Amino acid sequence: MPDVGLVQTQYFTFAHPPDTFELECGARLGPITVAYETYGRLNSSGDNAILVLHALTGDAHVAGKRSPEDRKPGWWDPMVGPGRPLDTERYFVVCSNVLGGCYGTTGPSSTNPTTGRPYGLDFPIITIRDMVRVQRVLLEHLGVKRLVTAIGGSMGGMQALEWGVNYPDFLASIIPIATSGRTSAQGIAYNAVQREAIYMDPGWEGGNYYGRPGPQKGLALARMIGTITYKSDVSWSFKFGRARNGSLEDLYKLEGRFEIENYLHYQGRKLVERFDANTYLYLTKAIDLHDVGRGHPSYAEALGRISCPCLAIGISTDILYPPYQVKEIAEILQKQGRPAKYAELNSPYGHDAFLIEFDKLGAIVKEFLAEIS
Amino acid sequence: MPDVGLVQTQYFTFAHPPDTFELECGARLGPITVAYETYGRLNSSGDNAILVLHALTGDAHVAGKRSPEDRKPGWWDPMVGPGRPLDTERYFVVCSNVLGGCYGTTGPSSTNPTTGRPYGLDFPIITIRDMVRVQRVLLEHLGVKRLVTAIGGSMGGMQALEWGVNYPDFLASIIPIATSGRTSAQGIAYNAVQREAIYMDPGWEGGNYYGRPGPQKGLALARMIGTITYKSDVSWSFKFGRARNGSLEDLYKLEGRFEIENYLHYQGRKLVERFDANTYLYLTKAIDLHDVGRGHPSYAEALGRISCPCLAIGISTDILYPPYQVKEIAEILQKQGRPAKYAELNSPYGHDAFLIEFDKLGAIVKEFLAEIS
Repeated sequence: MPDVGLVQTQYFTFAHPPDTFELECGARLGPITVAYETYGRLNSSGDNAILVLHALTGDAHVAGKRSPEDRKPGWWDPMVGPGRPLDTERYFVVCSNVLGGCYGTTGPSSTNPTTGRPYGLDFPIITIRDMVRVQRVLLEHLGVKRLVTAIGGSMGGMQALEWGVNYPDFLASIIPIATSGRTSAQGIAYNAVQREAIYMDPGWEGGNYYGRPGPQKGLALARMIGTITYKSDVSWSFKFGRARNGSLEDLYKLEGRFEIENYLHYQGRKLVERFDANTYLYLTKAIDLHDVGRGHPSYAEALGRISCPCLAIGISTDILYPPYQVKEIAEILQKQGRPAKYAELNSPYGHDAFLIEFDKLGAIVKEFLAEIS
Repeated sequence: MPDVGLVQTQYFTFAHPPDTFELECGARLGPITVAYETYGRLNSSGDNAILVLHALTGDAHVAGKRSPEDRKPGWWDPMVGPGRPLDTERYFVVCSNVLGGCYGTTGPSSTNPTTGRPYGLDFPIITIRDMVRVQRVLLEHLGVKRLVTAIGGSMGGMQALEWGVNYPDFLASIIPIATSGRTSAQGIAYNAVQREAIYMDPGWEGGNYYGRPGPQKGLALARMIGTITYKSDVSWSFKFGRARNGSLEDLYKLEGRFEIENYLHYQGRKLVERFDANTYLYLTKAIDLHDVGRGHPSYAEALGRISCPCLAIGISTDILYPPYQVKEIAEILQKQGRPAKYAELNSPYGHDAFLIEFDKLGAIVKEFLAEIS
């Protein structure tokens, strides 16, 4: 199947004059720039759009390449394109970098108009709901009248759920994947220790590290911890087992490494090259605050607002958002007579399976979209 | 049931002159002091002894109190005493702090006889097998001719297995709990990020921090990470859920905390007060190096040396040493005609269940000991 070809990230700025956009925490923010990409064409009635929602360290670059020299295409390339599950012959696919991000959308590393310097910790606390409200403004700007679906995994799935709860009339469906309607204690715990790793690094400097290297070790350690939770015990055993890096003598040193350790360090280094530590703090905090029930009489009643079809997809070996948490969403909706379904992606790859198992995931998504449209 | 009453930690020193004890890594160490406690009386034939083996941050103080003012008894108190599962009316129970430890047995914080200063990183890399060989010397010193059983959870279970592999004739049985015969890639990964947290702390100073505060933040973070893995998603949800610490306004701050975060910080602080960071590095490394198959033709053949009855106990919700890893030990032994059994402790508490579920664990252990003796 052909891919989407070359794409460019675009930018949209709103909330002029400054401080016109009120956040859930009560603070006001503006102007807000949103980085986004689109694939396919919006039809004249504006109702063939699909919104793709990225996870913690993702960006707007879902599919295709930005230049022919790019080594890799976007992060969900096999899912988006002509004839692919999110078929660009049929749908207008949109993805934007989230509020608080570091890939072009306003976040802690953006310039604070009141000081002329990066926000750093002056950036207000943002929530998943805030991200979704910004996306709503973007879609209006693009002329989208109604979404065929809002789809995403992990933090992306949280956004899909908030979409369903907040804008039920704007949606024909939602597809939350490997996620939860409210972050669990264990989920918070894993995020908390990752933030602590960043705080601990003297290079963090209270968030005022811009122009200097910043908390490279802390961010790398945060990513190393996160990486463990993104796969599964069985996949780590299969991929690395007890393979060693170096000789047996090296192993009898504190600094000797098994292959799994080397891999975690590699993942840590890679993220440091491409991600802002303060954004890591703010987005993990947004995940911790995630609870679609906030401001509603109850969690179940909040979910009950999702009147459109919902396909909740769990991953069998996910330890971060265990499948029971995803299944529970569908069950709560079904109890209220809502058209919700649960599907389980059977995979050894753990949480990350939604970024790996494209054949299985694509088939599930394709079937659901055929049903609802 | 009565408890064991007041106990005192005792000390035994061997390997005079220095450097007479050869470690698995090839380095020589000595003198070696071992801190230990005993409960009950050794019989005249010296064959009623039980060796209890502690986990990562444990010590020799298994049961009873050291003074009437002690707030808490030893870490496995409900398991050891008159009429308790390890019945001190019948058995002579011994527990020693492991080699490399910081509770009286020679470790990185002990004085290096060649320099007159703490070893720090001059301490050689030790293995689970080295720990067991030191215990063997202690038992000889105490006049023990044969063990009724060697029992322990987590790192203690690794020692029980090495006991079975290395001294099959010295044992009537072993009881490894919530452990593995060879540490998995995921197990190594969790230990690696914890060590990294200590390395990252400028207070670590390459291990030469004695006389100064040392890597308090790093050790606390290591413990916070470890703590997540010692329980289970379901137990965290049950104990803390999304309960907040402080007001909703506090929550909309980066430093705002959920109760689970507060609890992790508390666990971190508590460990810093009582544990040496270098010992944390050396013992987690020993766990990573743990593979009973090392030096044997194969893993299965090494396990096959365990000719005595083996009761391998897994914990249903253990994410650190998932039950399949414990069950596998019994299965490999059974295939070789060895008298091995697997029992599963059904508990929501995860890995730590062997330190919590005393009624369930006690019943399993008691039944097994009645069978073999």
